[in-house]
Amino acid sequence: MTAPRYWYNIAADHPELAEDYLDPATGRALKAEDLADVFPPELAEQEFDHDRTWIPIPEPVREAYSRWRPSPLRRARGLERALGTKCRLYYKYEGGSPIGSHKANSGVAQAHYAKRAGARRVVAETGAGQWGTAISMGSAFQELDCEVFMVRNSFDSKPGRRLYMETFGSTVHASPSPLTSVGKEALRADPDSPGSLGLAIAEAVESAKEDRRTFYSLGSAFNFVCMHQTVIGLELAGQLAEADVEPDLLISCIGGGSSFAGLVFPFFGMGAKGRKQPKFLAVESNAVPTVTAGEFAYDHGDSAKLTPLVRMYTLGHRFSPPGIHAGGLRYHGLSPQVSKFIHDGHGSAVAIPQIEVFEAALKFTRSEGIIPAPEAAHSVAAAIRTATEHRGEELDIVFLLTGHGHFDMTAYGTYIGGGMEESATPTETISASLRESIGGIDRPEPQQVSKPVASGKGSDSFQEWWRRHFDGAATPATAEAKPAPAAPKGAADLSGHAVVTTRTLGDLAADATEVRLAAGAVVTPLAQDELSRRSIRIVRNS
Amino acid sequence: MTAPRYWYNIAADHPELAEDYLDPATGRALKAEDLADVFPPELAEQEFDHDRTWIPIPEPVREAYSRWRPSPLRRARGLERALGTKCRLYYKYEGGSPIGSHKANSGVAQAHYAKRAGARRVVAETGAGQWGTAISMGSAFQELDCEVFMVRNSFDSKPGRRLYMETFGSTVHASPSPLTSVGKEALRADPDSPGSLGLAIAEAVESAKEDRRTFYSLGSAFNFVCMHQTVIGLELAGQLAEADVEPDLLISCIGGGSSFAGLVFPFFGMGAKGRKQPKFLAVESNAVPTVTAGEFAYDHGDSAKLTPLVRMYTLGHRFSPPGIHAGGLRYHGLSPQVSKFIHDGHGSAVAIPQIEVFEAALKFTRSEGIIPAPEAAHSVAAAIRTATEHRGEELDIVFLLTGHGHFDMTAYGTYIGGGMEESATPTETISASLRESIGGIDRPEPQQVSKPVASGKGSDSFQEWWRRHFDGAATPATAEAKPAPAAPKGAADLSGHAVVTTRTLGDLAADATEVRLAAGAVVTPLAQDELSRRSIRIVRNS
Repeated sequence: MTAPRYWYNIAADHPELAEDYLDPATGRALKAEDLADVFPPELAEQEFDHDRTWIPIPEPVREAYSRWRPSPLRRARGLERALGTKCRLYYKYEGGSPIGSHKANSGVAQAHYAKRAGARRVVAETGAGQWGTAISMGSAFQELDCEVFMVRNSFDSKPGRRLYMETFGSTVHASPSPLTSVGKEALRADPDSPGSLGLAIAEAVESAKEDRRTFYSLGSAFNFVCMHQTVIGLELAGQLAEADVEPDLLISCIGGGSSFAGLVFPFFGMGAKGRKQPKFLAVESNAVPTVTAGEFAYDHGDSAKLTPLVRMYTLGHRFSPPGIHAGGLRYHGLSPQVSKFIHDGHGSAVAIPQIEVFEAALKFTRSEGIIPAPEAAHSVAAAIRTATEHRGEELDIVFLLTGHGHFDMTAYGTYIGGGMEESATPTETISASLRESIGGIDRPEPQQVSKPVASGKGSDSFQEWWRRHFDGAATPATAEAKPAPAAPKGAADLSGHAVVTTRTLGDLAADATEVRLAAGAVVTPLAQDELSRRSIRIVRNS
Repeated sequence: MTAPRYWYNIAADHPELAEDYLDPATGRALKAEDLADVFPPELAEQEFDHDRTWIPIPEPVREAYSRWRPSPLRRARGLERALGTKCRLYYKYEGGSPIGSHKANSGVAQAHYAKRAGARRVVAETGAGQWGTAISMGSAFQELDCEVFMVRNSFDSKPGRRLYMETFGSTVHASPSPLTSVGKEALRADPDSPGSLGLAIAEAVESAKEDRRTFYSLGSAFNFVCMHQTVIGLELAGQLAEADVEPDLLISCIGGGSSFAGLVFPFFGMGAKGRKQPKFLAVESNAVPTVTAGEFAYDHGDSAKLTPLVRMYTLGHRFSPPGIHAGGLRYHGLSPQVSKFIHDGHGSAVAIPQIEVFEAALKFTRSEGIIPAPEAAHSVAAAIRTATEHRGEELDIVFLLTGHGHFDMTAYGTYIGGGMEESATPTETISASLRESIGGIDRPEPQQVSKPVASGKGSDSFQEWWRRHFDGAATPATAEAKPAPAAPKGAADLSGHAVVTTRTLGDLAADATEVRLAAGAVVTPLAQDELSRRSIRIVRNS
């Protein structure tokens, strides 16, 4: 199969899934330009893009993807036999990426956009180390400096992940660090602080704001991260179409939510075009039961309240996640798009206890060979539950194996040695966190729930339908038909852009003397430099 | 591409590469039946098979292969750019197997044959842990018990690899162990013995001999292991044919030699059929320069002198390898077939120092993402040397990346921290080892050197040639034309079999009453059980 050439932007097909982000201080709805001081402008645009269904994957990102994509889709026949089920189990395996998980799909994209916006450096936080490794790889490919604030607890206990980042050339700081004001404050309060993801985020954001040629990058939850991950679902659709299999159920785990979004959003889009709609199952840890025991409410994305207020499933930003082995699922919130998707009834969620998860992982390893990352093992456990409950039915079930567990062998040792503990979080703990976290936050009413999607199995085979609707490269036949905007000359009209970047300016004719901008449009510092250098006058619409 | 259905047995096309193995006690040439007490009979047959060029891959092994094969072939464009070379660099990546290296290809095959021969248990030695993990996975798939004797030094320093094996359900013993007589003896001599591969082999072999339903398995050097690895070269040929690329140079590292054999033997076979013959380069560590500084001579495969005498490149079985990070290259000898292949001038070898190897690995990681295992990094270093020396030429160079370095991050940390030491072994050390090791061993003259292979580029494209000569499944069109032997009835003639296994008996008609065997044929204990159960009389040819 050929590789996808576009990402799928669900907000264009389903704008009701993209609710406003609110400024934590003023409560007003945020726009792309509000993010332009920490994100590359093109990513800030993607975050709020409700227009383009298909967003072209830049050529350098596609070249990077070619190093591990397409990722394999495999039938788990050994596991089927071990379970004695008639269900057909398939897994899409993202652990074959160089860094061992799906995070690579956004890591190379974010580094690319940072480079194109003139960055010399990116900064990121990392908990268990997956995202830090992904952005380190992306930065190495782009020859960007990369600094990672790694939660001290992981920094000390996971030297392998830290060395992995350093091998890519990154600088890794234990967080809290003495390099930022929030870090210094945390160290003053507790010199032995083990750190937290919220604190590491705050350090990274502060560090990015200090320098106009440094951008912040993050590994999940945001819309553009979810969108970058749609290469997974698009590829999967092509692979299933080749085999003419229309799945009954798609499964992925949810931490920030990007792997789930990447897997299911493209299939949701196809359902809207009249194909059979699979069911979508999100799997969380019963230690961090964001969807199954949290609230759908406006809350902060971080404990320091630096990030925008977004409506999402949340356990409250003051929730202190217990130390489960699936570090990637220890997030109090969930991607706003994924949250709305589930809240609107398009998918459901299940919470699974840690011991069942590792039991499932062992069964998978012994029948299929791969040792799943603890996060990915949640999907395995849900697939096993389903295939066992529906033992006699010939369901086609696909689960996403987001990564391998090569850096999690200690957790497996604990399980094998009988020392693994149960993970359920008491209801009272969750209630208290929600009360303290979101009690005082104003909550706009949710936007209209999307209409139920017309769904059915067309009379043609999935294979034929896929070939007719997509051009074999997992891209819509129509996506390339839209003409590119003509390059302005002389007096150039850029008033359609909320953010003006050097890329936007790249389309200007050499003899441009004046640009017309929208009243509130933001001009990035590098674009400003370029305009000054070329003595181009800015005229703003009133 | 479709998966290979046969392994390529070079000894059938080139019997001069398969020299006699000698009994260490008597000096007589060994036959399959001499190995039948430790190996499954079918593997013992494969070891000495000089007749069948194409050996069918059993269906359960092909199903296991489908979990990670075909392995990807990728163009290293990032590395090409970093080197500023016109050479086109490709790598075939075996690190995507569940256990992270090519060892999986033989692990699942050996476990399959053991199971088919009625085994309930396999035993193996492992140094750094790669082979132990591979045979553990194969055993898990076959629901066989598996015990691994792991060199104590690694047992203590590589808990991740040990836990990996245990996750598959294996029992891992630190070697020397109190479970065998050789182990006890070693512990008496030194209770803190760090162990050695030679000792671990001896423990595993002793343990296998104790129980007739236990077989020994080993990870390299033997002919059947090299043959199992030919799926690599066969797949590669198909992938290159698809792109119509005929390579100029193939590169792999050599420890025991199986990855090199698996990569190049199929291409050597194609050269004999008139296609352009690539050059073949074997890469070793300058700490263990078996080919470049050793002798081509009869020697023991292990330090305890339990294994057959074979002619090979050797540093002497008393050679004490220095503690380099590429644990898989710390073997004093080399596969007899690979040794003869190089000795006859079909390939060449180069020894590379450790620091250059890690420098190359870092360059590769930062341009391509994957962290190579230290062994595999030797091939990267050789590819970089070649592509730099021939910077202006458009050579097509393929190197085999045998595995990833996820369990070798400590070594990378040492390199990044500037603490890595050089690795060259002094000439005097090697001379002394050779003198002590092979001084007293009789050496039969080498068999006739094979005729130079006719080689040239045919007038047809490689793509067309491949399609015509192979059936698209990387199998020879003729391989399946040979009729299967008819099943004997009543009085059955099995005199063509040197070893009679339950598989051999599986072809007997239900009413068989008598079997005719060759005078020296060995009947395995399980086959003996079966014959007794069915009251079948054995008649031996005089």
